[in-house]
Amino acid sequence: MSPFTPTERTQVRRLPNRGAYDSETIFRILDEGFLCHVGFVADGQPFVIPTGYARSGETLYIHGSAASRMLRTLAGGVQVCVTVTLLDGLVLARSAFHHSMNYRSVVILGRAVPVEECEEKMKALELFTEHVVRGRWNDVRPPTDSELKATTVLALPLAEASAKIRTGPPEDDEEDYQLPIWAGVVPLSIVPGAPIHDPRLISGPEPPSYAKKYSRQRP
Amino acid sequence: MSPFTPTERTQVRRLPNRGAYDSETIFRILDEGFLCHVGFVADGQPFVIPTGYARSGETLYIHGSAASRMLRTLAGGVQVCVTVTLLDGLVLARSAFHHSMNYRSVVILGRAVPVEECEEKMKALELFTEHVVRGRWNDVRPPTDSELKATTVLALPLAEASAKIRTGPPEDDEEDYQLPIWAGVVPLSIVPGAPIHDPRLISGPEPPSYAKKYSRQRP
Repeated sequence: MSPFTPTERTQVRRLPNRGAYDSETIFRILDEGFLCHVGFVADGQPFVIPTGYARSGETLYIHGSAASRMLRTLAGGVQVCVTVTLLDGLVLARSAFHHSMNYRSVVILGRAVPVEECEEKMKALELFTEHVVRGRWNDVRPPTDSELKATTVLALPLAEASAKIRTGPPEDDEEDYQLPIWAGVVPLSIVPGAPIHDPRLISGPEPPSYAKKYSRQRP
Repeated sequence: MSPFTPTERTQVRRLPNRGAYDSETIFRILDEGFLCHVGFVADGQPFVIPTGYARSGETLYIHGSAASRMLRTLAGGVQVCVTVTLLDGLVLARSAFHHSMNYRSVVILGRAVPVEECEEKMKALELFTEHVVRGRWNDVRPPTDSELKATTVLALPLAEASAKIRTGPPEDDEEDYQLPIWAGVVPLSIVPGAPIHDPRLISGPEPPSYAKKYSRQRP
């Protein structure tokens, strides 16, 4: 996979050694996450809205109701920023100043285009489901024509993107290392609980393994 | 606490029954989270950047290096959108169409102002540390004058804000409830791991309880 070329806009300026532009790193972060924050401007005001996404090759898909302001605004081809952040831990330094977080984030800039073609649209809907819960698509009632029409799918090319990553222990000032203060990292991760049955579940179906042992690990 | 008045811009339009405008709900979400996504426009392009925050009363503070493009842009008084999202679970419906996520999010619109006054700035730095790890501030080496100068703190009034919340089981189409498909919720939460010692830790200090038993629970 070829690296993304940092542009004036995606070049990580603050702490540039935390920046990464290779598609392997960027894709791995996008594939582990499933919640993004979409930034766009409407009437001069920036908005940041959380939503799901999926990736296929060098395309990021987002979707939503055809009635949504965000989807309608984005479908108009305006500039968009999609950011995915994975929080990995709290960094407790000896000084207040050097406290930080370990994280991996990706920022994607560009313009989204609506997916109009039915087959690509259906494929994208499958991707959304499979991206969040692998194996689910084949178990569920697929979208009807009217559900397909009520859903807007947008494709954002993964052309202008960068990752920013912080890992590892605190980085304290040299003279602070002698202070008798505990320092280190509190790791954080998203952990699934036991599946909660829908109260209207008819007797019979047990939670599938993808629900009982939910994991973001990918082969 | 008085409710926020929904404005043309913060009124939840899609699925309006998910909208909430009371400050208790909004503050509780802000106090449980500690990572926000900040949206702003620079050179016509929206950017969405993850960062920490803290709240005091009806003010949200964000901070960063005085050299950061984001902080410099925001300090100019431009329109900003700060969004906090807490992910609570995956909603597995019987139909692909009704799959969803359980979440609590807050969207804040406004303009941030730099905190110049030294005492308020120091207080805000204490808030950032305490908001993420309660009890940490008193254990660490406090900021020096030059660290204070190198840090920009911005205050965003919590004046125009709304929450959006989804909880509970899937909402399937009535005729789908008879399908022999498992449906329910996979709860998700952020769970701390065992603290990782800084490899340069001098012998002596053990991890404090706020690191060994890290929790977002608040009294």
